Amino acid sequence: MSKRIGVVLSGCGVYDGAEIHEAVITLLALDRLGAEVVACAPDRPQMHVIDHVKGEPVEGETRNVLVEASRIVRGEITDVAKVDADSLDAVILPGGFGAAKNLCDFAVKGPDCDVDAGVAKLIGAIHAAGKPIGAICIAPAVIAKVLGDKAPTLTIGDDADTAAGLEKLGARHQEQKVDEICFDETNKIVSTPAYMCAKSISEAASGIEKLVFAVYEMA
Amino acid sequence: MSKRIGVVLSGCGVYDGAEIHEAVITLLALDRLGAEVVACAPDRPQMHVIDHVKGEPVEGETRNVLVEASRIVRGEITDVAKVDADSLDAVILPGGFGAAKNLCDFAVKGPDCDVDAGVAKLIGAIHAAGKPIGAICIAPAVIAKVLGDKAPTLTIGDDADTAAGLEKLGARHQEQKVDEICFDETNKIVSTPAYMCAKSISEAASGIEKLVFAVYEMA
Repeated sequence: MSKRIGVVLSGCGVYDGAEIHEAVITLLALDRLGAEVVACAPDRPQMHVIDHVKGEPVEGETRNVLVEASRIVRGEITDVAKVDADSLDAVILPGGFGAAKNLCDFAVKGPDCDVDAGVAKLIGAIHAAGKPIGAICIAPAVIAKVLGDKAPTLTIGDDADTAAGLEKLGARHQEQKVDEICFDETNKIVSTPAYMCAKSISEAASGIEKLVFAVYEMA
Repeated sequence: MSKRIGVVLSGCGVYDGAEIHEAVITLLALDRLGAEVVACAPDRPQMHVIDHVKGEPVEGETRNVLVEASRIVRGEITDVAKVDADSLDAVILPGGFGAAKNLCDFAVKGPDCDVDAGVAKLIGAIHAAGKPIGAICIAPAVIAKVLGDKAPTLTIGDDADTAAGLEKLGARHQEQKVDEICFDETNKIVSTPAYMCAKSISEAASGIEKLVFAVYEMA
């Protein structure tokens, strides 16, 4: 029987949603391992919409996180608040600013951030059941906020300010290179820097593929 | 020196833009081969915006093809009308309905379709210079319209109606399986069905990776 892996998306596009390369590389690696993917996202408005050519917010435009995220999975997506954690063997969170703007608001509030209730509930339940979690790029910020009392060891690469933010939430930060994973065996949490460090899509893929393999093996 | 490969995008999302998996798999395969990617798209409104959860058009919303496509390439994109064909060694067109709605209007008009002027000019110039072209999924419809007088051999998989549409434009259609490529050596055009046939992302990747390799080798 194939393992069911939840993939938590945060929109569609690096600057206001899920980082598309990270999400697709995760989906491809999972599919090649024979996983059944359960994609999900919060059914709420994005923090904002960024014109990715200009790199600037678009005034007056609103988009829904779930609806935009569905573009990455050809429409096959579920409201994260309605996902049954018991039905999953693991979850993986790709990065992109959406992880720090829509799954939580770490991008704005740093260590004072709040996490979307559905995302927090899913991560808490997966962890409580002893199942593994993968967090890519900036997504470890979400894990640090939800599971900070477990003192998880996480990586976001080597950015000192971001690492300090995670540590204020209770995490221990471990520097890693783009092609490496940080493996917290006690908490069954795997993280990798991806585009926190990557200078190309193949660099991002090098770490993400290791992360997906490690999470899948543990699931 | 690395080869410069143009990747023509048509938005961001299978139902109204570029198929995201096909685009990202193309970018990853090119990067792993050492290519320099020049992403481009038409600077024009999309035919429409589809809510990918509901599968229905969103009334009153407009999005720009170039701006949405830029999400897939983290902002690094050029107006296709401004791309210098002489600076490229090849072009690849990922699929998605956007290829048949925004690069041309084959999805609406079939063989009576028109092609975006910038896209037509680029494809014509690349072909005239004896450089290779890759077309994925439904994107061969664009090639059939622009280069129909060269009687290119193309595949869109095995859909009889779509194949007949391409043949009305002057192309010869060749049935191929999802993990195969159709290789027109005379015209240096490679095509593969991807999500015209694929039931999973890894099936789509199997043909796309062969296509990218074949185009890159010829470039």
